[in-house]
Amino acid sequence: MPDLMVSSTQNNRVKTVVKLRERQHREELGLMLVEGRREVACALQGGVEFVELYACEPWLRSEGDASLLEEARKRGILVVSCTPRVFEKMVFGDRAEGLLGVARPHWISLGELETAASALLLVIEGIEKPGNLGAIFRSADAAGVTGVVLCEPRTDLFNPNAIRSSLGTLFTVPAVVSGAAEALAWLKARRLLLVAATPQGEQVYTSVDYRTPCAILLGSEHAGLSSFWLEAADARVRIPMRGRADSLNLAMSATILAFEAARQRASVSG
Amino acid sequence: MPDLMVSSTQNNRVKTVVKLRERQHREELGLMLVEGRREVACALQGGVEFVELYACEPWLRSEGDASLLEEARKRGILVVSCTPRVFEKMVFGDRAEGLLGVARPHWISLGELETAASALLLVIEGIEKPGNLGAIFRSADAAGVTGVVLCEPRTDLFNPNAIRSSLGTLFTVPAVVSGAAEALAWLKARRLLLVAATPQGEQVYTSVDYRTPCAILLGSEHAGLSSFWLEAADARVRIPMRGRADSLNLAMSATILAFEAARQRASVSG
Repeated sequence: MPDLMVSSTQNNRVKTVVKLRERQHREELGLMLVEGRREVACALQGGVEFVELYACEPWLRSEGDASLLEEARKRGILVVSCTPRVFEKMVFGDRAEGLLGVARPHWISLGELETAASALLLVIEGIEKPGNLGAIFRSADAAGVTGVVLCEPRTDLFNPNAIRSSLGTLFTVPAVVSGAAEALAWLKARRLLLVAATPQGEQVYTSVDYRTPCAILLGSEHAGLSSFWLEAADARVRIPMRGRADSLNLAMSATILAFEAARQRASVSG
Repeated sequence: MPDLMVSSTQNNRVKTVVKLRERQHREELGLMLVEGRREVACALQGGVEFVELYACEPWLRSEGDASLLEEARKRGILVVSCTPRVFEKMVFGDRAEGLLGVARPHWISLGELETAASALLLVIEGIEKPGNLGAIFRSADAAGVTGVVLCEPRTDLFNPNAIRSSLGTLFTVPAVVSGAAEALAWLKARRLLLVAATPQGEQVYTSVDYRTPCAILLGSEHAGLSSFWLEAADARVRIPMRGRADSLNLAMSATILAFEAARQRASVSG
């Protein structure tokens, strides 16, 4: 597909991109924005369907950028070249790296998640903050989590802040959006060990054996886990609080639990 | 000291508080703002010197608020009652809880840090982001870290976002600001085990024995640890990255390391 060139900020494509900064328009159009080199690369790797990719050549820096564009063209994605003035109008903040994609959000289904011996899932109930969502994906990626199940999320999952703070891992860590009952039935049928994180947990989180297919359950920032999940869990664990504040935030708790599971699993394999 | 009542937004005190939102004025006046119930309580606990404490009675909710004010009065802190209109002008964002303190930043010196058997320090070089600073203190508090040494920080440590995101633990976890050479000489003289976190670490972070007085060294968000600290360390450790992104953020790394140390120490004491 030949590239297109846009040099007017009044161009209709530019107006559409600007609109996509608002959640309402993202939801109406079923589209999201993917900004930044690393994010676009992750989305391409993760098989995200791009509608078009905007490139501002004067702002591209690395050889990696050229091969990203080549890869996009090879996949038949329309590459739109634009002038710095046009690009500036479309991007948000000061983190422009000369690449901006318009893409379709895509989730996998529960059935596509791994449930083999190595399965390590995070199940997050009712997440509220895009920044936490991004941070959780980043930690999940680093800890080798095999999938994230978002139950009844209360945030726009493709908020640009969520994508940015995930460093693009929102597109590479397998992720499912699901209702609670459906997710629980699926987890139970696959006999995953369900470990619920709660300040009222009877066990310290380090006392559980995570070297089995398991799912770590975490609740929303404000309410924590609902009784639905607390009652369904095989173990309820707490992270000991040794200081004066009474809770870690959701992303920190997810990180600590995922890395404890990774630690135990690594010490088995050698 | 009898309470003062302020009902005009043109009052000079109100103008001073508004100015303190800016770093320049905080530094000129040597003052900071402490907003929120939990934050004020932590600062009082931590022995922070308050110049005055603003209270908006219609917005106070809990019994805890009344005892906080009583405690402040007992310590001779001027309590200034203000109307909702005045209070609204002074606070930032939508998180007003009816309490706002003006206080003097206070740091302890290296010599006041604990170096006994239980000592577990975090040494952070050149931190840049207030949000990370707050998150690190929150994790440090939860993990039982006995002190944080900030070497040549590049952020305003009393940025309201740092205080907020620390949930007030910025005032309760012992903290020192120091030059690098001075801090290293002090750490070496006390024979603390120095564990440097770096993506190029020769050891996995879980292979170090943290059940000895030790200091975990972490570098800035962008540059990581300088060669000064990397060469001085007794061990250089990495957190294995099992996914596609190439780094955890600073606060996440600090959390993972501090909780690994806490895990090892807890399993000793039973």
